[in-house]
Amino acid sequence: MTINVAVIGASGRMGKEVVKMVLSDPELQLVAAVAPSYAGKDAGELIGSKTIGVTVVATFEEAINNAQADVMVDFTVPHLAYAHAKRSIEAGIRPIMGTTGFTPEQITELDELCQQHQLGGLIAPNFSIGAILMMKFAQEAAKYMPHVEIIEYHGDQKLDAPSGTSIKTAELIAQTRQELRQGNPEEKETIEGARGGYYEGFRIHSVRLPGVFAQQEVIFGGNGQTLKIRHDSYDRAGYMPGVNHAVKKAMSYTGMVYGFEHIMD
Amino acid sequence: MTINVAVIGASGRMGKEVVKMVLSDPELQLVAAVAPSYAGKDAGELIGSKTIGVTVVATFEEAINNAQADVMVDFTVPHLAYAHAKRSIEAGIRPIMGTTGFTPEQITELDELCQQHQLGGLIAPNFSIGAILMMKFAQEAAKYMPHVEIIEYHGDQKLDAPSGTSIKTAELIAQTRQELRQGNPEEKETIEGARGGYYEGFRIHSVRLPGVFAQQEVIFGGNGQTLKIRHDSYDRAGYMPGVNHAVKKAMSYTGMVYGFEHIMD
Amino acid sequence: MTINVAVIGASGRMGKEVVKMVLSDPELQLVAAVAPSYAGKDAGELIGSKTIGVTVVATFEEAINNAQADVMVDFTVPHLAYAHAKRSIEAGIRPIMGTTGFTPEQITELDELCQQHQLGGLIAPNFSIGAILMMKFAQEAAKYMPHVEIIEYHGDQKLDAPSGTSIKTAELIAQTRQELRQGNPEEKETIEGARGGYYEGFRIHSVRLPGVFAQQEVIFGGNGQTLKIRHDSYDRAGYMPGVNHAVKKAMSYTGMVYGFEHIMD
Amino acid sequence: MTINVAVIGASGRMGKEVVKMVLSDPELQLVAAVAPSYAGKDAGELIGSKTIGVTVVATFEEAINNAQADVMVDFTVPHLAYAHAKRSIEAGIRPIMGTTGFTPEQITELDELCQQHQLGGLIAPNFSIGAILMMKFAQEAAKYMPHVEIIEYHGDQKLDAPSGTSIKTAELIAQTRQELRQGNPEEKETIEGARGGYYEGFRIHSVRLPGVFAQQEVIFGGNGQTLKIRHDSYDRAGYMPGVNHAVKKAMSYTGMVYGFEHIMD
Repeated sequence: MTINVAVIGASGRMGKEVVKMVLSDPELQLVAAVAPSYAGKDAGELIGSKTIGVTVVATFEEAINNAQADVMVDFTVPHLAYAHAKRSIEAGIRPIMGTTGFTPEQITELDELCQQHQLGGLIAPNFSIGAILMMKFAQEAAKYMPHVEIIEYHGDQKLDAPSGTSIKTAELIAQTRQELRQGNPEEKETIEGARGGYYEGFRIHSVRLPGVFAQQEVIFGGNGQTLKIRHDSYDRAGYMPGVNHAVKKAMSYTGMVYGFEHIMD
Repeated sequence: MTINVAVIGASGRMGKEVVKMVLSDPELQLVAAVAPSYAGKDAGELIGSKTIGVTVVATFEEAINNAQADVMVDFTVPHLAYAHAKRSIEAGIRPIMGTTGFTPEQITELDELCQQHQLGGLIAPNFSIGAILMMKFAQEAAKYMPHVEIIEYHGDQKLDAPSGTSIKTAELIAQTRQELRQGNPEEKETIEGARGGYYEGFRIHSVRLPGVFAQQEVIFGGNGQTLKIRHDSYDRAGYMPGVNHAVKKAMSYTGMVYGFEHIMD
Repeated sequence: MTINVAVIGASGRMGKEVVKMVLSDPELQLVAAVAPSYAGKDAGELIGSKTIGVTVVATFEEAINNAQADVMVDFTVPHLAYAHAKRSIEAGIRPIMGTTGFTPEQITELDELCQQHQLGGLIAPNFSIGAILMMKFAQEAAKYMPHVEIIEYHGDQKLDAPSGTSIKTAELIAQTRQELRQGNPEEKETIEGARGGYYEGFRIHSVRLPGVFAQQEVIFGGNGQTLKIRHDSYDRAGYMPGVNHAVKKAMSYTGMVYGFEHIMD
Repeated sequence: MTINVAVIGASGRMGKEVVKMVLSDPELQLVAAVAPSYAGKDAGELIGSKTIGVTVVATFEEAINNAQADVMVDFTVPHLAYAHAKRSIEAGIRPIMGTTGFTPEQITELDELCQQHQLGGLIAPNFSIGAILMMKFAQEAAKYMPHVEIIEYHGDQKLDAPSGTSIKTAELIAQTRQELRQGNPEEKETIEGARGGYYEGFRIHSVRLPGVFAQQEVIFGGNGQTLKIRHDSYDRAGYMPGVNHAVKKAMSYTGMVYGFEHIMD
């Protein structure tokens, strides 16, 4: 059985990768692509390939109303995410949301809506299997080795520090480990900021260098040993196996899931 | 309540660390130390410290018979391990065995003996919490990212390659992941051995350099990303928190446990 | 002053990157592109960009004869390299050769030819500044820390092991360090090949995993310390600053240089 | 020919290692050891070994006046260093100073004094060959790859951040590379300090974890590649080959050298 997929935000950097991924999997069928600046053109142009017979549309509504989509994949912007997810469920289409910015209340509401319509859905800030395993292992290690620091590496033009993934990892660690304020209480920085950003007793360091895409290392230390969990992501294509898995998986359950880790198995 | 501890093999490299660990924990009391070459001397001499009032004895039997030990810690040699463990249980002392070389039948027998005497015991090839977490995470990651290689690093005088820990890790990975023969089937080594040792479809590499104590990295690759789990062990002292935990834990359960990971929580 | 550049092998993976690099630098002018399968089309099509007004030609001769090139960049195949370089010099065009496969005699002959025509030229197996620095530092470190091993990482479909760069690095190390057969002479492999490929007393390990492009680590060990020099290459674009530098530098010297390291300053 | 060595600060952590090193090298002879708290005892007690026939003395003066030392090794405290070095040269003994805290004027004066007395001497903040190579390579790499960050790792009880070695490395990099303020000018820290300590346009990050002795990584990034130079120091013993080399080398030159790197060859 082929799954019909609509891609929202199809001319964005992630959206293009989603279009490529859908086209390269015979079990998936691209039935709509939304990208205002490409409206009216063939979707093949989005990814510099040959004509594929799907005309790009300008609006989310056109895609939802006209295409016979089973699943829609949405990598747009946080302020549209909730509305898109809701409308999609009401139209009988399973939403795979690659955006953040949902409130807990919105997630609960969307989950109920999914239940009513007997549809699966997913909200996931991260589709990278390796990154999710890193976070999971870091959380577990913190139970046994509570002394920890996080170093994350991104390209030098990134605006915010620390990264979203490092903050998420830090939250998971803080939830698990015993309360602990690490380091020497008399510690002194001779260059301000050298010790990194403080989060619940430990430190996060953000490295920004050209040539780096996205990397993170979580280091646990104690008693003559260190344990390191490191994830290196080299390109956006690395997220696509996760998106592919989510699209297929959403056909088989009911409810709105928050976090890719819950549908990994 | 203080736990009385007997240390067998107390002049060995691990044994000395165990003596130090016992002496530094107020909840533990050293009641016997076995080391033929130090027999008759004060146990403080074993570790270059002040007199502690425990006379080193020459034989295992003396320690077992005369001391009121609750637990004995044994880092001796494989061919004595089974006899020591058995005799210890019969004498009502919980054995913590840091040696390998037990057959499955012997473990079963010792477990039954522990049950009879209502005692806890442990056989553990590795007491390093970090190493055990590394193995556990590697096994789990292999479910999702089946492409893997292991690199282990030890001092340049180590005789065997690959290391016991790397083989144990490889076994755990092979148990979990889908069957897979990695790499290009047409692959060709221009220098024999460059691709490492072959184990169930993947490779193990053994690095031997002076200045290294014991390190291991398990690398998973796929789809524009890599996940690395690395454990660095800098000295024998790093094993002692695990031994300390085992000594205390053995007071609270019944039966012979094989593998430190089963009593970690 | 603008430098006119001809690109040979313009539809290959490296050739396309060279075309992009030339087009993006206002000091360079693309005057010819050779790619039989694109002959007659605009060179912009090679890289999926807009029309740039240069028609792709089918043969090396057309490019050499008709275009007013100052420099030609050739990433084709070893068996054509010598003939291309020679013909280029005779036509008054400086060759930048990104291929291997020249004999020492050929290099000497091409150098003489460059001298006669008062032209600069370059033969370089590697244009990556980071890789060249890694090799240089490894060679120097081997003088002081002779115990060394090399680990190189490439994609899992690579055919040969170890990599060319690792062999080149090994040669440089062997030239510099005191003779030394590392490791325990009684060492025993329980899994054949675990200790890697043997080269002049030390070992090279080749890791092959999907998701990896090209990485290498040279590890020196001794006396309670290790020194690691590691180069990670994430894509072919990483070689272009080196090619760009070579194109410009070739305008300023006379003779055929072998090895990018000699024109780095 | 045997070299007679006096060790000042012989009961300190570094001093003990120096005593061990001297005793284990047949080309060196321990002739004096200064350690007030051990005065009158045999020097073997300093290191928990057998009697060696050298009585520990309480003061620097006793060691200088009575022992026939060729070289003295001084790992004491900065405020005594200058006086010790001066007095040593006047007494005809070559000083190897493992302390910092000399002014440029003092170094010049001591150099002149060494010239007068035809003696060699050394002031070295770091005797680790690996650390010195790391700094040297980092300085050189910065010429070609100016985008850089430094991460240094030490035990969690260290008081100051960043480490002396990282600041020294940063100085060397700043001297060499083109002026550059790295990163996005609009960059924003959501957790203060996440981006590390600012030094001449780049960042230094200090990690503090139990189980770590001293490690540093210098990372260069650019154009799809990274170059990393990493030094891991596992114990104080790792500094001794450098001290041993310095003791012997000081017999062969005249003048006060500042920096171990200048006598490495």
